[in-house]
Amino acid sequence: MGTFDAAEYDSRLTRTRARMAGEGISDLFVSDPANIYYLTGYDACSFYVPQLLWISSTEPLHLFLREIDASSAWLTANLAPDQVFGYPETYVQCADRHPLDWVADIIRPRLPADAVAAVESESPHYTLRAHHALTAGLGRSLQPSPRLVNWVRAIKSSAEIEVMRTAARITERVFEVALDAVRPGVRQCDAVAEIYAAQIEGVPDAGGSYAAIPPIVLAGASTAFPHVPWSDEPFVADEAVALELAGARARYHVPLTRTMYLGTPPATLAALADVTGEGLDAALATMRPGVATGAPADAWTEVIARHGYVKKSRVGYPIGIGYAPDWGEQTMSLRPGETIPLEAGMTFHVMIGMWLDGGGYSISETVLVTEDGVECLTIVPRGLICS
Amino acid sequence: MGTFDAAEYDSRLTRTRARMAGEGISDLFVSDPANIYYLTGYDACSFYVPQLLWISSTEPLHLFLREIDASSAWLTANLAPDQVFGYPETYVQCADRHPLDWVADIIRPRLPADAVAAVESESPHYTLRAHHALTAGLGRSLQPSPRLVNWVRAIKSSAEIEVMRTAARITERVFEVALDAVRPGVRQCDAVAEIYAAQIEGVPDAGGSYAAIPPIVLAGASTAFPHVPWSDEPFVADEAVALELAGARARYHVPLTRTMYLGTPPATLAALADVTGEGLDAALATMRPGVATGAPADAWTEVIARHGYVKKSRVGYPIGIGYAPDWGEQTMSLRPGETIPLEAGMTFHVMIGMWLDGGGYSISETVLVTEDGVECLTIVPRGLICS
Repeated sequence: MGTFDAAEYDSRLTRTRARMAGEGISDLFVSDPANIYYLTGYDACSFYVPQLLWISSTEPLHLFLREIDASSAWLTANLAPDQVFGYPETYVQCADRHPLDWVADIIRPRLPADAVAAVESESPHYTLRAHHALTAGLGRSLQPSPRLVNWVRAIKSSAEIEVMRTAARITERVFEVALDAVRPGVRQCDAVAEIYAAQIEGVPDAGGSYAAIPPIVLAGASTAFPHVPWSDEPFVADEAVALELAGARARYHVPLTRTMYLGTPPATLAALADVTGEGLDAALATMRPGVATGAPADAWTEVIARHGYVKKSRVGYPIGIGYAPDWGEQTMSLRPGETIPLEAGMTFHVMIGMWLDGGGYSISETVLVTEDGVECLTIVPRGLICS
Repeated sequence: MGTFDAAEYDSRLTRTRARMAGEGISDLFVSDPANIYYLTGYDACSFYVPQLLWISSTEPLHLFLREIDASSAWLTANLAPDQVFGYPETYVQCADRHPLDWVADIIRPRLPADAVAAVESESPHYTLRAHHALTAGLGRSLQPSPRLVNWVRAIKSSAEIEVMRTAARITERVFEVALDAVRPGVRQCDAVAEIYAAQIEGVPDAGGSYAAIPPIVLAGASTAFPHVPWSDEPFVADEAVALELAGARARYHVPLTRTMYLGTPPATLAALADVTGEGLDAALATMRPGVATGAPADAWTEVIARHGYVKKSRVGYPIGIGYAPDWGEQTMSLRPGETIPLEAGMTFHVMIGMWLDGGGYSISETVLVTEDGVECLTIVPRGLICS
């Protein structure tokens, strides 16, 4: 029945319902595949068609999938067969009817007239048309609810942390492979092929999951561009290569970023690496329960300002379950001015990208907030890696 | 400047604007990353935050990205720097403001009062909240437009077909590797690692892109479940393994499905494979310009009905550019009752999944509709592959 036991799922649902109650919501329609996985364990690459989880305050969970996928949920999810509904194939990608027409017909008679029903308003994979179909079919409007389940996911259980520790071992293995594979003369795609293989092979006692974001491998001038794809060109001597790579296990991600230099680095890059490392240390040193999410960003900014650098983008975000296109939880940002207090059990990807024209440098750690600080989940040497 | 020349992009935009005009739309807001890539060449794994392409009947294209990604578009897209706008980092994943608030402020003064403005209503990655921000910021409602650019993508140019032929060579290489890697005693994840590596390594003169859908490797009982992930367990002797794998190049996909049997197949599976093969042949034989998209499905259904089989799900869909979560174009379906006529230059993944309890069998071909039939883009032997 998957990675977690029934008690874990009960706890997740109880905390979700408590949060719903706190916001005055009786019924929530969840479509984010990461949230569906979190609450049910349903894991399949089937979310290119509409999927919906109905969390009711009075009924058990109902999961609506395409008919050909419903049996997969009977197999893999923490749900009884009568909690899973498959909409007919004739509703898939049609101009004149939508899967949620069918879904709404099931829900409507079971939804109390006085229900306060809400829908995830920031879910990817929940389209405008899906929303029109659901509201028309239910004959009522739905309150927008941004990321309610994402917030429940913020604090990890011990079972989740155990899975992330396994993912972290995969990340370490991925970096062993990557640091060896990236060499002058090797086509970028060939090195990325080795990286992918290491991600999926995992470690001897635990295979890897596919990551929600492809390997980010930025060579030379591309170190200035955070999200561009690798190329077919070979790496060349005397260029920097930034690597942002995740190990993943059971959909939980532990990303890590390091920058290599293929030769003797120019003094400007070495200096940037030193300042960035000092800033990262300062940011991590602030993080402990009760401290605001703005604090690590402030500490970072203070260090680099002293050295004459500026960075406008955030320095981290919560990390855990991910499906494409994101492995972040999209709730908090480590950014000046943010006031949400850190809590023990939260996990963050503290990601510092200095995507500077003419020579960028990136470094990150995935950390667990502990009772009195943070613990880095992976052990990979910091600093500019010269080869 | 990427894979295609400026004339190719001009042609794509001209055909898009013609289709808009035909539907009485003056301005279209595009958020599907596949459509943004199709029209501009912008390719980055940055679509976990809002992105928007404004197609105006009077203005040049405007592409709105997160500030840290804007320079990537200057580098990779067929756009001038003043066509790319980066919204500030302070709008990323905030409770009290949305990137499209900022975007709407740019667009509002430039959008004529009499514009008929529409928005992609079936785009993944365009959330309900994004829509509320855009409509509120523009101070007007937006007409829902389902998949207008997806439809423009249906007929491939010769340049696109050339890219897909390269992807097809990668697919062939992926199957060489996969058929060798899947063996009793090998952990499923280790075989999938080799498959991933082959996808990305590509061929000597062309590296691969990451596919929009992970390798689908269904072993044993999982052959009944179309989209479940592989496991850490080893393959065992005397089980079937279905492989649905794509080669991809410059975001164009050529998927292919074959089923292996690790031993001497039971007579029931061999019979199912024969019938399915006959049905696939019959479906492909119907396909040529002018024939309805329902025809191949009818031919398929007629063959399997004669042998006592039933299949409710569609037998194919258009294929080309893809970003997670889908490599299909989500326009047509090869399904009984569908009436859209095939045209030369269309490409389909003719995908037949018989996900039967107790022993499924799947097979597919990616085909190009030619002047007088179809051409299979890959050459991989059909039929049940026994090893």
